[in-house]
Amino acid sequence: MKKVKLKIPATVANLVCGFDILGMAVNEPYDEMEIRLLETPEIIIKHTDSFGLPEEPSKNVAGVVLSKIQEHFNLKNGFEVIIHKHIKPGSGLGSSAASAAGAAVGANIVLGNLMSKDEMVHFAMFGEELASGVRHADNIAPCIYGGITLVKSTDPIDIIPLNAPNLFVAAVHPQVEVKTSDSRQILKKNITLKSAVEQWGNIAGLVAGIEKNDFALIGRSLNDVIIEPVRSILIPRFDEIKSKSLQLGALGGGISGSGPSIFMLAEKKETAEKIAELMKTIYDEIKIDNFVYISKINPAGIEIIEEPKLD
Amino acid sequence: MKKVKLKIPATVANLVCGFDILGMAVNEPYDEMEIRLLETPEIIIKHTDSFGLPEEPSKNVAGVVLSKIQEHFNLKNGFEVIIHKHIKPGSGLGSSAASAAGAAVGANIVLGNLMSKDEMVHFAMFGEELASGVRHADNIAPCIYGGITLVKSTDPIDIIPLNAPNLFVAAVHPQVEVKTSDSRQILKKNITLKSAVEQWGNIAGLVAGIEKNDFALIGRSLNDVIIEPVRSILIPRFDEIKSKSLQLGALGGGISGSGPSIFMLAEKKETAEKIAELMKTIYDEIKIDNFVYISKINPAGIEIIEEPKLD
Repeated sequence: MKKVKLKIPATVANLVCGFDILGMAVNEPYDEMEIRLLETPEIIIKHTDSFGLPEEPSKNVAGVVLSKIQEHFNLKNGFEVIIHKHIKPGSGLGSSAASAAGAAVGANIVLGNLMSKDEMVHFAMFGEELASGVRHADNIAPCIYGGITLVKSTDPIDIIPLNAPNLFVAAVHPQVEVKTSDSRQILKKNITLKSAVEQWGNIAGLVAGIEKNDFALIGRSLNDVIIEPVRSILIPRFDEIKSKSLQLGALGGGISGSGPSIFMLAEKKETAEKIAELMKTIYDEIKIDNFVYISKINPAGIEIIEEPKLD
Repeated sequence: MKKVKLKIPATVANLVCGFDILGMAVNEPYDEMEIRLLETPEIIIKHTDSFGLPEEPSKNVAGVVLSKIQEHFNLKNGFEVIIHKHIKPGSGLGSSAASAAGAAVGANIVLGNLMSKDEMVHFAMFGEELASGVRHADNIAPCIYGGITLVKSTDPIDIIPLNAPNLFVAAVHPQVEVKTSDSRQILKKNITLKSAVEQWGNIAGLVAGIEKNDFALIGRSLNDVIIEPVRSILIPRFDEIKSKSLQLGALGGGISGSGPSIFMLAEKKETAEKIAELMKTIYDEIKIDNFVYISKINPAGIEIIEEPKLD
């Protein structure tokens, strides 16, 4: 019987102009997950956090992923999972993806590396489907691959790991509720070709900047003319935080996932720290509880904290 | 007094999914241009080809570019230009851009390198404006920079030279007229967000593939769901040429510029040769005169054939 303990990074999906295709893993916050292979077929989920997430396997993101893996490989074994969740559900920082990806990666390790990364993505997407109703890999892909990933397609799964630029990330999670469904419904179904062309210029620039490690180009390309102008109205003080962050030296940034978290990229740690302070001050002023995070882009994705061993 | 002789590559703009932003220089066909600095302020343009292009400087693409340079730098000198044009006007292979970019680069050399590449692009765009009514740099940028270029913006000029993958290009110019204005009017002003997202996944994949030299990824990304389905109806047998080229091993391809030329990329010269033969056969069958070209992506842009010298 094997077990493993994992550190699972938060992720920023919809990377500014990269709506629905680009995501990024960050070092903070992160979840921890212990997963143990059982001789018997039960799936047991325990949360040590106090977010009140369901522990019944069929209603739990990790549980659903493990059931699918169990079914697919005709396993006689089950899994016991203990989740220490620190990434707040509903933050827009990939909380459900962390549970889903952690379960897939953890299962793969205790089962002796049966799966490719793309297969793990495949199974983890069942968890996202439970959480949001949509089989998407925007957060799962960077969580598993690390760095910045392009999800070119989910059917078939076609994920392109990009470079992980040596940049700092400042993020704030203001405690306001933005429902993913609202955040999606607010988007217009049609856009002008003119704005689409501007957006794809930015996407091409962003990908080139990431691959070339050209931070100035990344900065010039972090510009979303389509989604952000619409969605940002759901996030209090978004425009002020963004413009002041740029004044402080941020390369750029925007909404994390579908919000309400906001992230900014910076070349220097001190800049990221100043931005985080700014974010905190702005939300404190209007009495919105908030959490700020300063970290680097996570190049490796999910990491093993304790090596798997026989016990 | 100085003179120079240049070799100026044809260019493929609107690189499949990269409508209005990505262009590529190719080795064949190419124009030649001789440019000589005069002591007197005239601008003299001569064409040795028989395309019937106007030689009056104010109506000639190269002439307009040289006038703007003369004006900007308050020159007492003029220029004599002899153009040996081989890139057919109206082919969609950047014929006007070759004249415009050649004039800017040639002037820069005989004037002793006054200008940056982006300044040359700036002046060359006046030539494109004369030719098409639009100040665009889709063809000028790869012509001057070589390889594949991203035109992120023309105001201000923001051009990102990308890698030049070691690939072969087969192209065909069927002798049918496709007016750029028709080709533009036929496009829908609005598109669905869904198709835009698919397109930017392809653009991101294409740029990543180009930068990583990942030919399979380039192939998977050469897919245009927005422009090509509309514009290709103006080009006889487009669908047949494309599907059969892919069967022969093309990585992908599409309309060059706004047509009517079609290009395909291939890893091997033999594949490009087979594709060119296919293109020729198909147009011969339906009695449409055609020219086919096989070459490599041109990594260097405009080249000096004869060094500038005092005479």
